[in-house]
Amino acid sequence: MEAPLRDLAARLEAGAATDVFAFEPARCAAPLPRAPQWLDGSAFLNHGRLMDVAFNKPAIPDFDTIPIMYQGASDDFLGPQADVPFVSEADGIDCEGEFGVIVDEVAMGSSAAQAAPRIRLLVQINDWSLRAVGAREVRTGFGFLQAKPSTSFAPVAVTPDELGAAWHDGRIAMALHVQRNGERIGAASGGEMAFSFPQLIAHAARTRRLSAGTIIGSGTVSNADRNAGSSCLAEVRAIEMIDHGEAQTAFLRFGEHVTMEARFADGSPGPFGRIHQQVVRASGATAA
Amino acid sequence: MEAPLRDLAARLEAGAATDVFAFEPARCAAPLPRAPQWLDGSAFLNHGRLMDVAFNKPAIPDFDTIPIMYQGASDDFLGPQADVPFVSEADGIDCEGEFGVIVDEVAMGSSAAQAAPRIRLLVQINDWSLRAVGAREVRTGFGFLQAKPSTSFAPVAVTPDELGAAWHDGRIAMALHVQRNGERIGAASGGEMAFSFPQLIAHAARTRRLSAGTIIGSGTVSNADRNAGSSCLAEVRAIEMIDHGEAQTAFLRFGEHVTMEARFADGSPGPFGRIHQQVVRASGATAA
Repeated sequence: MEAPLRDLAARLEAGAATDVFAFEPARCAAPLPRAPQWLDGSAFLNHGRLMDVAFNKPAIPDFDTIPIMYQGASDDFLGPQADVPFVSEADGIDCEGEFGVIVDEVAMGSSAAQAAPRIRLLVQINDWSLRAVGAREVRTGFGFLQAKPSTSFAPVAVTPDELGAAWHDGRIAMALHVQRNGERIGAASGGEMAFSFPQLIAHAARTRRLSAGTIIGSGTVSNADRNAGSSCLAEVRAIEMIDHGEAQTAFLRFGEHVTMEARFADGSPGPFGRIHQQVVRASGATAA
Repeated sequence: MEAPLRDLAARLEAGAATDVFAFEPARCAAPLPRAPQWLDGSAFLNHGRLMDVAFNKPAIPDFDTIPIMYQGASDDFLGPQADVPFVSEADGIDCEGEFGVIVDEVAMGSSAAQAAPRIRLLVQINDWSLRAVGAREVRTGFGFLQAKPSTSFAPVAVTPDELGAAWHDGRIAMALHVQRNGERIGAASGGEMAFSFPQLIAHAARTRRLSAGTIIGSGTVSNADRNAGSSCLAEVRAIEMIDHGEAQTAFLRFGEHVTMEARFADGSPGPFGRIHQQVVRASGATAA
């Protein structure tokens, strides 16, 4: 499949393709609307430290030497402008700006060095989360389930070469601009991952094979530099708790919008396109 | 699809079907080799209590009123007689005998009453587990990932009516006979679930929709009656710790076999067929 697709892309860029139409992100599904697996790491240690504050829990053992990762639902991904349905505002509706990779088949027991060339595409993600539910589920030890509804993707998955120097050391060194109703929440860099994507893939594949199309996430992009802001509201609230003794920022309500777009160092937009979604009440859900 | 399949089944039973051949379980894949989601509960409270001993951890909050559940990989299920590859015996290789249901599409926020009629098929499962890894992962709060390699299924998925009176109250009241190298480990009844399958489905669907083909597991079948034995080795070891201060039973080694078969109250074999698998070293894995 790769050769004819590369040929078509070259003809498109040269203006020589037929049946061409304008790109309409609003009509896009997620680059992969379904995937064999969706495995999301938590590779930004600054985020992990702040979430321990948010969830009022002790640090995870070995968090700085062994990646932590949960398995999410991969059968119902949302496109970049799809409304995002939730049953209750009381669940603590939050966004999580992330980057991710889509891999070719990875053999069980692959090393990070073996995993690196299996990365085929890069993606930009909003890993929607329910914080009130997550605080309970993390205490069960069984991980997030109700706390992780459908995940959303920017419209375009790109091959790593499209990022130029911004793809290096197995990381995406771009600022992820996150807005709530048009107001800035943050613009943290994906370059600060404590574990690279190849390391995350090797962690996932230690005891299982990964089917082609498996998506591995970075976890919430987060930087030690406070000026970078945050990529989710739980982090904003954790910083408020540390600074002021209590959280001041509210979680999302129905009708609010979240926008995410990765940008290069010079401020120009990246190739993933923009996630721009509205939080809505799930049809059939009762008021809560 | 249902009507022509029911017609074919009726013709098969009447001896009127053409192109008939003998059923060969050894050639069967899992009833669904891939599924949209695989969500495994832990609905037998006796198992949960013993696993707290095995993992040396406090009880899970609200374990008797809110189901606990993890999301497993659903892209690489194994058939009933497939060899099961593992990278290291040091990971604590264990079986887990379970029952499960396959559902039609379930809307987000469905109640247990709404979920019940969405159950289409029943299955019998071996949820392979790595206990040394699981003990660490449960402490991260992110749940099982490396601890849960590919899951195996008995060859036949059946409609609930095939179980007669053994399918009642949303539970499978059959004894799951589990053997290690032909020696009995247990024969606990699936009727002792603290949460029914419809309750487990409603838990899974509270904040997400479930695609048709999603599989919901019971968790390890376990009974309060010690004479029923166990459906996994971690439970056997936990009982040994309680009784003798230390575990005596070893986890599985390469070359060992595990057999599972559900039986009706009169001892006759159920319709799921038998899981009979060998534990093997993953190809490419180094000695460990």
